Amino acid sequence: MKVLSLNRLKDSEQLLEETFPEVEFVFRKNVDEINEQDKRDADVVIGYSGKADQAFFEGMPNLKFVAWYAAGVNSLPLQYFAERNIVLTNVSGIHAKQMSQFVFAYILDDYKQMRVSRQNQDNKVYDSTITGRRVDGDTLLILGTGNIPKQISKLARAFEMKIIGINTTGHEVDGFDETYPLKELDQVLPKADVVVNVLPETEETYHLLEDKQFDAMKETALFINIGRGTIASEETIVKALNEGKIRHAYLDVFEKEPLSEDNPLYQLDNVSITAHITGNGKENFKEASQIFIRNFKHFLSNGDVIEKKVDLSKGY
Amino acid sequence: MKVLSLNRLKDSEQLLEETFPEVEFVFRKNVDEINEQDKRDADVVIGYSGKADQAFFEGMPNLKFVAWYAAGVNSLPLQYFAERNIVLTNVSGIHAKQMSQFVFAYILDDYKQMRVSRQNQDNKVYDSTITGRRVDGDTLLILGTGNIPKQISKLARAFEMKIIGINTTGHEVDGFDETYPLKELDQVLPKADVVVNVLPETEETYHLLEDKQFDAMKETALFINIGRGTIASEETIVKALNEGKIRHAYLDVFEKEPLSEDNPLYQLDNVSITAHITGNGKENFKEASQIFIRNFKHFLSNGDVIEKKVDLSKGY
Repeated sequence: MKVLSLNRLKDSEQLLEETFPEVEFVFRKNVDEINEQDKRDADVVIGYSGKADQAFFEGMPNLKFVAWYAAGVNSLPLQYFAERNIVLTNVSGIHAKQMSQFVFAYILDDYKQMRVSRQNQDNKVYDSTITGRRVDGDTLLILGTGNIPKQISKLARAFEMKIIGINTTGHEVDGFDETYPLKELDQVLPKADVVVNVLPETEETYHLLEDKQFDAMKETALFINIGRGTIASEETIVKALNEGKIRHAYLDVFEKEPLSEDNPLYQLDNVSITAHITGNGKENFKEASQIFIRNFKHFLSNGDVIEKKVDLSKGY
Repeated sequence: MKVLSLNRLKDSEQLLEETFPEVEFVFRKNVDEINEQDKRDADVVIGYSGKADQAFFEGMPNLKFVAWYAAGVNSLPLQYFAERNIVLTNVSGIHAKQMSQFVFAYILDDYKQMRVSRQNQDNKVYDSTITGRRVDGDTLLILGTGNIPKQISKLARAFEMKIIGINTTGHEVDGFDETYPLKELDQVLPKADVVVNVLPETEETYHLLEDKQFDAMKETALFINIGRGTIASEETIVKALNEGKIRHAYLDVFEKEPLSEDNPLYQLDNVSITAHITGNGKENFKEASQIFIRNFKHFLSNGDVIEKKVDLSKGY
């Protein structure tokens, strides 16, 4: 049994080798350093890479299990995996703490006018009339009710926000005051002071937010996107901000990443940009490896996994 | 019975007059607009002002009750109130939500490197390697265990921080994992990743933090001051930051307010300055008036108040 890692995993390498002494591990720095022999031998692939496309996996005749060290799997050849009966897992839970903390970094940056205080400090201006907006009592609408939304709702509860969730069927979820099905989105949007998108990219969510949806939001709304950039076209978002359909946006994901210098978002005042960083964390390799260890133990004895298995037809 | 307000109170004026139809209310814009007749007639003073000193109150022979619309009462002539049996209340609780939210605005601004992202946006730089530090698991030390610290601890609990409190005797307080008496401060400081001062100004807390205390903190510690500027001398804080005794500070209060343009803090990179704004809130007048209403009902029938009474010998 051979496991090929698409990344070097620091301390986790030793942990994996000690946990599975009978397994041979090969750790490569990135996809470019993987040779054909590595691929021919691989029974299992772990790690993540933006460059691992179908052609890459086609060189692996023995591949049975891909433990993807990221939450989003939309760059992977899911149909090819399905045809080959390759088991795919992701690590959707491990970014929940970091990402939910970023959501509140954004909300509080905005509500407490941290940029204004920063500018004042730079200009040696002491303005004691700045009045932060209080979070408690405001309504948070989360598009998605999975691991990350649940963690966001936990923080939002402590901040005494009202919490609404959107999921496919509208089924109730612990921690949410109200949940609605995706098809009722347009009726729910006007209620929200803060709209956070955490949805994965699927056929259902691609360009889900169009002009009409931004029109339905409050003009005072704050829009946060930490899900996928394709939830709305760049044109739609720029238009919504330009025309003041919403007050401000915090965007961590974009239709075309990385952003180019001439991206029109850079010309807007009412947007705050981060560079797809809300899932980054020095704990990630370790926590992803812990999930892999639990799954791989099960896989070695039963040929299947126990957690974070991706439904290849749904894409999450 | 006449009530003199040192501020105009917007919607709350009507509420007060309707709640107490037998009482005469006088609402002035500020202390400068109050005449001698206003003062001679006043049985009760409500509101707040930085200019209300002992001389101001000496013109009020009928004064029996001061409902101070702020948390800190250290600018008031407490001994004079004690000698005259004047009841003093503050509104220590009403700023708790706003101030606790600001504490997390600061922590997350720092932990998630929001300034770096902001600078990158200004420079049209897209750096997807920025890695936020996770809050969960870190230790928060709060100097104080009163209303505001309790509210901070409630948020910190949701963020899964370890929460330590310091109070006079070290008595246990709900929501804190550990509490220690003030005299053990030096032994507790090395444990903290984040130190938040919320203590009021008293003889015991004046210049409580000296070089030795900053030496005891972790070099990686974040220091936040939303209590009173006199917790440490300006010289001590500037020295601690200049010499890297701590990593960064968020300061909302200062020994000499307002900060002058030549204040040495403006020369430092590892400090973030806000202008004594963490207690500002558009809800404050309303919430302070609601406390006053509850107290004044009791005062009219019993000559005493039921909540937020200040111990004039302690100053809080």
